[in-house]
Amino acid sequence: MIDNKTYDLIIIGGGPAGITAGIYGARQRLNTLVITKSFGGQVARKAVAIENYPGFEKISGMELIKRFEKHLRRVIARSDGHKIDIERDEVVKLKKLKQGFLVLTKSRQKFQAKAVIIASGADPKPLEVPGEKKFIGRGVSYCVQCDGPLFSNKTVAVLGSGNAGFETAISLSKLVKKIYILEYASEVIADKENQERVKKINKVEIIANAVLKQIKGNQFVNSIIYQDRKTKKNITLYVEGVFVEIGSIPATNFIRDLVGLNKKGEIKINSKTCMTKTAGIFAAGDVSEIKDKQIIIAAGQGAKAALSAYEYLEKFQN
Amino acid sequence: MIDNKTYDLIIIGGGPAGITAGIYGARQRLNTLVITKSFGGQVARKAVAIENYPGFEKISGMELIKRFEKHLRRVIARSDGHKIDIERDEVVKLKKLKQGFLVLTKSRQKFQAKAVIIASGADPKPLEVPGEKKFIGRGVSYCVQCDGPLFSNKTVAVLGSGNAGFETAISLSKLVKKIYILEYASEVIADKENQERVKKINKVEIIANAVLKQIKGNQFVNSIIYQDRKTKKNITLYVEGVFVEIGSIPATNFIRDLVGLNKKGEIKINSKTCMTKTAGIFAAGDVSEIKDKQIIIAAGQGAKAALSAYEYLEKFQN
Repeated sequence: MIDNKTYDLIIIGGGPAGITAGIYGARQRLNTLVITKSFGGQVARKAVAIENYPGFEKISGMELIKRFEKHLRRVIARSDGHKIDIERDEVVKLKKLKQGFLVLTKSRQKFQAKAVIIASGADPKPLEVPGEKKFIGRGVSYCVQCDGPLFSNKTVAVLGSGNAGFETAISLSKLVKKIYILEYASEVIADKENQERVKKINKVEIIANAVLKQIKGNQFVNSIIYQDRKTKKNITLYVEGVFVEIGSIPATNFIRDLVGLNKKGEIKINSKTCMTKTAGIFAAGDVSEIKDKQIIIAAGQGAKAALSAYEYLEKFQN
Repeated sequence: MIDNKTYDLIIIGGGPAGITAGIYGARQRLNTLVITKSFGGQVARKAVAIENYPGFEKISGMELIKRFEKHLRRVIARSDGHKIDIERDEVVKLKKLKQGFLVLTKSRQKFQAKAVIIASGADPKPLEVPGEKKFIGRGVSYCVQCDGPLFSNKTVAVLGSGNAGFETAISLSKLVKKIYILEYASEVIADKENQERVKKINKVEIIANAVLKQIKGNQFVNSIIYQDRKTKKNITLYVEGVFVEIGSIPATNFIRDLVGLNKKGEIKINSKTCMTKTAGIFAAGDVSEIKDKQIIIAAGQGAKAALSAYEYLEKFQN
């Protein structure tokens, strides 16, 4: 083990929870490493402006994350004499050592730490229907923020009627000709404010009780087939874009038995300390079992996890 | 009961937890009332700039709270058709009714709600030594932000060596001649960053193992007497100001048996939902039993409490 790759605390992830944990770790003068592919997590993919992070009445996800990242970098710049780093890399494995933990990355780097905070967030959940994989990047999208502009003046479908689905529709509404929102359940899930907003858009049609069966096309998507759960009839909609917003999957591939997962695949934590079942491993943000997936809640949890890790390390050293 | 004084949700308190709960309640289109004496809670009393609320690298407590309040007022302004109000008043009693709750205020107003979020924060803890009450406003202060400028070029004592005490000393250091920080324990409590800052100030002297015995003076404070816990000797320090920063007391006077309190007097909550032992009453922020008293954590809890209250009300109405 090369010595300069050893830290007090490694934080895996660069969304609101990971960045906040980084700010708190650095301020506590822990030798801290933040490992993340990119900054932002799901916030960077947000379809519409954020209006519920207190202090910013209205701000885009990208802009908020830029401010978070700048904040973290400033804290790092000010922590003279302490080793606080950021690595742009992807964690592929987290192992327990006799003392502390080992983190392996995609680019074959190895890092060691006495404590770890997992804040790796969540990835979009796939539909798992025929045609989905085939048409990724050719009509099927998991990120309106990234792909929206490709669908100018076209007819598209949004799968999922939660806030993410509704916000995707709102974001698309300025661009596209027509939007179908398909929902498996009998009622939409989005909150009142998003429902009111979508009501004002003429080009949105909501279809409840819809089970997506297939995505069809030649080179690009040209239609989808869904079944109406009540009539059992299969119905074809001619769309050129399919936006998948049916939820997300906690990003826990790199970790196995060291943490317990709930039914949703979220890391189980002590909700007071954010500690997992393995002493020294903490989890925060959307990868953990928090009921409400909100930026302000994830950030609060990141702070909590870092302060708990600090307490743990104080004991560890004595 | 006058009908226009009935709400879905009443939020008691206007600090980070209360304001965030207000933003979330209003966005969920709940008829919401926020009752608070003033906005800011402990944040408005913060001695030094805040550098750990993600998104703002450095901001004064007053400025951050102004932004929070503005954010809440903007959400209220946009919630057409829904009754969302702010009352500048002090809650003196919270009672359970057959259906919902009754809130009584100092100015003898009565409000009713189906759910209540207590986010009343905490008040400074008094020293409870002879002379303290007598000299309040005449040398004894609980708010450097409010009273600091009165002590220009004087010698002062700060009671308490936690972050609040150290930050009070940092704030005073530009103004006063000399600062004593007195701590009962054998070691200081403030975090590393604050310790480093105070080390750089020449005029600060830290006295550990100190038990304050008395505050003396004529018209104004002129000295304090403390006992050294090791030598048992009483020692006099000539100071003209005494800043009390020995912690805070959760503000729960208006509520009795409806909630359970822990040993610190904090309201016990289900840490996943912020619900207290009484269904329909939630608590968030420093009045509740959260381990780390941080703005970002309190705000996250405010969001969580409001979303839990929303869920509770959905069930309540069905």
